[in-house]
Amino acid sequence: MTGGKRNDFVTAERSARTVEEVANLVGGRVAGDGSFVVKGINSLDEAGEEELSFLIDSRYRSKVNTTRAGALIVREEIQGFSGPQIVAEDPAVAYIGAAALFAPKPPRMQGVHQGAVISPSARIGRNAVVYPFVYIGEDVAVGDGTVLYPGVYLGDRVEVGEDTVLYPNVSVLHDCMVGSRVIIHAGSVIGADGFGFIQAKGRNVKIPQIGRVQIEDEVEIGANSTIDRAALGTTLIRRGVKTDNLVQIGHNVEVGEDTVIVAQTGISGSVKVGRGVMIGGQVGIRDHVTIGDRAMIGAQSGVARSVDPGEVVSGTPSMPHKLWLRTSGLLTKLPSLYERVRKIEARLERMAKRLGPDD
Amino acid sequence: MTGGKRNDFVTAERSARTVEEVANLVGGRVAGDGSFVVKGINSLDEAGEEELSFLIDSRYRSKVNTTRAGALIVREEIQGFSGPQIVAEDPAVAYIGAAALFAPKPPRMQGVHQGAVISPSARIGRNAVVYPFVYIGEDVAVGDGTVLYPGVYLGDRVEVGEDTVLYPNVSVLHDCMVGSRVIIHAGSVIGADGFGFIQAKGRNVKIPQIGRVQIEDEVEIGANSTIDRAALGTTLIRRGVKTDNLVQIGHNVEVGEDTVIVAQTGISGSVKVGRGVMIGGQVGIRDHVTIGDRAMIGAQSGVARSVDPGEVVSGTPSMPHKLWLRTSGLLTKLPSLYERVRKIEARLERMAKRLGPDD
Amino acid sequence: MTGGKRNDFVTAERSARTVEEVANLVGGRVAGDGSFVVKGINSLDEAGEEELSFLIDSRYRSKVNTTRAGALIVREEIQGFSGPQIVAEDPAVAYIGAAALFAPKPPRMQGVHQGAVISPSARIGRNAVVYPFVYIGEDVAVGDGTVLYPGVYLGDRVEVGEDTVLYPNVSVLHDCMVGSRVIIHAGSVIGADGFGFIQAKGRNVKIPQIGRVQIEDEVEIGANSTIDRAALGTTLIRRGVKTDNLVQIGHNVEVGEDTVIVAQTGISGSVKVGRGVMIGGQVGIRDHVTIGDRAMIGAQSGVARSVDPGEVVSGTPSMPHKLWLRTSGLLTKLPSLYERVRKIEARLERMAKRLGPDD
Repeated sequence: MTGGKRNDFVTAERSARTVEEVANLVGGRVAGDGSFVVKGINSLDEAGEEELSFLIDSRYRSKVNTTRAGALIVREEIQGFSGPQIVAEDPAVAYIGAAALFAPKPPRMQGVHQGAVISPSARIGRNAVVYPFVYIGEDVAVGDGTVLYPGVYLGDRVEVGEDTVLYPNVSVLHDCMVGSRVIIHAGSVIGADGFGFIQAKGRNVKIPQIGRVQIEDEVEIGANSTIDRAALGTTLIRRGVKTDNLVQIGHNVEVGEDTVIVAQTGISGSVKVGRGVMIGGQVGIRDHVTIGDRAMIGAQSGVARSVDPGEVVSGTPSMPHKLWLRTSGLLTKLPSLYERVRKIEARLERMAKRLGPDD
Repeated sequence: MTGGKRNDFVTAERSARTVEEVANLVGGRVAGDGSFVVKGINSLDEAGEEELSFLIDSRYRSKVNTTRAGALIVREEIQGFSGPQIVAEDPAVAYIGAAALFAPKPPRMQGVHQGAVISPSARIGRNAVVYPFVYIGEDVAVGDGTVLYPGVYLGDRVEVGEDTVLYPNVSVLHDCMVGSRVIIHAGSVIGADGFGFIQAKGRNVKIPQIGRVQIEDEVEIGANSTIDRAALGTTLIRRGVKTDNLVQIGHNVEVGEDTVIVAQTGISGSVKVGRGVMIGGQVGIRDHVTIGDRAMIGAQSGVARSVDPGEVVSGTPSMPHKLWLRTSGLLTKLPSLYERVRKIEARLERMAKRLGPDD
Repeated sequence: MTGGKRNDFVTAERSARTVEEVANLVGGRVAGDGSFVVKGINSLDEAGEEELSFLIDSRYRSKVNTTRAGALIVREEIQGFSGPQIVAEDPAVAYIGAAALFAPKPPRMQGVHQGAVISPSARIGRNAVVYPFVYIGEDVAVGDGTVLYPGVYLGDRVEVGEDTVLYPNVSVLHDCMVGSRVIIHAGSVIGADGFGFIQAKGRNVKIPQIGRVQIEDEVEIGANSTIDRAALGTTLIRRGVKTDNLVQIGHNVEVGEDTVIVAQTGISGSVKVGRGVMIGGQVGIRDHVTIGDRAMIGAQSGVARSVDPGEVVSGTPSMPHKLWLRTSGLLTKLPSLYERVRKIEARLERMAKRLGPDD
């Protein structure tokens, strides 16, 4: 079972297409034999003779000489490659289109499986797919074309938009809202209680978390992530935000449009993140901090102060990225710096002995 | 669907109450018109005219001048606020009580759903709620009033106390014990095997993990967290511990009463954490370390040595917090320090040339 | 319910065995009374009079004087211990064998529960155990003796080998392969989409993730972990890899045989990790980096450059472990270093005043 070859799988049971068909669908022009048939798409290193490959990053130009790929997506026609080429203004976009063509078939299941439990007051849109073991609470609304995989839980009064996909074992707790064309990967939890306690007589007394989470359209949330409901009001994930796996977003956070958050990052309560921000992996952001639009935060940073729009920061404590590059480079030279200071002190002592005391 | 206003939701379908009713229930006195009706609770910034708000932190005093809130919870009556006020000795505690009053209605489902699978040998307490898709193994005991949401798994011989809530897709593996009035948020895993292997002939041989996890009363565990069973004996989470999301607690760890652990922190095997300890987010604690009672550990710290009772530490390696504040502040000045040392050395060279060699 | 003693549990309802039986099964010889009956196994600190204990690490030799254990596993016979001893060449291996003997009984459920949903095109091996609330998609293959706990999801065309255990609420997405004798702990997600987007007109456009994950034989994956499918080709976890909880492995990563990865570590896309590597907890590894065979990476390291075979690194940025020990030790002395440099500068100023300007 584990002896299967690595890459024979990608093309299995997928449609064969001519290069010309692909070019038309991705908006490129054909150079060479457009009737050549490709059965899949793969990297330059791993593509086979019946597969399409692509050159997006010119640093990999030399791989074109050794690839076994039968056809290529390129920015400009490459001399010396014998197969047909699809010339596209933006080969990355063309690649995305072509990859979608060769992606595995969508799930065959249709409709609402009788093994789901759906409250009578819930409304399920047309063409929605509800797998078995899905639980849908009271007064829930699920939009047209949305897919709920097994183990999905929608608490009372949850609303989910159209053409959204909730992968297996995703939990959306009561009163939360998920927009349209959203993807939430398996195991993620939307709307668990925010983490709020007050100390009273040495014990931790829970502050009721009676807000909600709102996820706007076209957001993608990674697997096994957690987005907490607000104490009051709304934890808000705006249109087009993309988060990786195992990300934690605390209560009352607001994340601006098109912001990208890499895996295992944690955002504390009441943080405001602007739009178009890039946050690396394993970053921690202190509560109530503001991150300006289009800021960039390097991986593993610890951000305890607000970051200005467009600023690029790294490190713990976070600092301008260029300063961090210099600082972190100097860290490894600390032992020699201490030695240099020791030598300076010794030299000064000798000088003082020779010249008489200086203080 | 995503176009809904942010805050009209919180009060939807919830009970309206007079200010006097609220004051009586939270133990405050009314200043002003106690017959005023409030329909929800919200922050000073976001409250509407029919909502109650609160001033807990006097730094936000000026917001009282601009809030639209219809009524306030305060420590001392505020002149110039036109609506009724609930004056409470501890406004934070009064706020918690009031927030609980306006929290969303509890789940309407009651009893044991026929879509759950329950072993004949399991005992289910009175008024317990068991949703569909719950699996309850052999010889399990579930206490009175406990709620098991869809996707909860209780392995053989698990015991759960009274009035405990296990949110969707929580897994409690065989032989583990969960106390009374415990909350475990969605997706958490209690009692996966601890991580223990020995190397034999270059391979990793699994050490059987035959202990268990015991979670005492009034503990709250965040979403998608993991608490591993002991290799032998018990991983012990004592009364009143509160942990945030995505926290990892290794095998044979003991966490003392009322300790608070923020998100994404990892505690390695056999660590002993005292009572009333505060551990920030993304902290890592090395195996077999002891953390004394009421110690505080700053976010992102790496703790490789034991921490004394009451000690406040931060950083990697962890150090006294005040030292860390100074040290981390100096980090960003390293480039200028290197430059200063270089200048000193050059100056000494010049002096040596002028005064004759000094060594 | 929470008042139970800590350790009376481990031996509950388990078989009693004579010391001689245990010795025969683990390949040791008996010194003393082989007919002595033991009912469980426990640590020197916690074992009771009817329990077997063990001395693996000679640093704990003195505990033998105070243990209440009735019998011991040892490397060499210990004078002064009154009970019978099992003398084994490798007491750690003997302990593992003995612990397995006293482990809780395996699940009693057998066969395929009618509460599972299994596509007609799926093939289920002999003696496989399928709990209720398991979903098995089209053209899935499950090997002989494999156990699928409640809430497990196997997407279309997934293949799982023999004698593998998937714990509750594990999701294996379409087209992924899991080998034989694999353990995946509860809540983990295999085959969520890799995190890949391109920026187009200020928005994030998703790069289709059409590869898969392949997990080879004898791998163990911790709870609530995530292993992403490749963009193209395969994310590959080779034979014998062991990962702890909450670990993130990005798309197109390859992890070599017998490598060990501790909790909360994140490995970015396209990283190649060699065989026999040890990676500590909360480590972050940048994309496209290569980690050589048998390298060791200290906890919380940030690895942005490739690591040579056998190299031992720590810190952020990662550096040779010995250098990191010196560097991190010097960090706490930074305040005094700055003070020393300040004093040197002042002294030089005084000298310059006395001796005349030096520049």
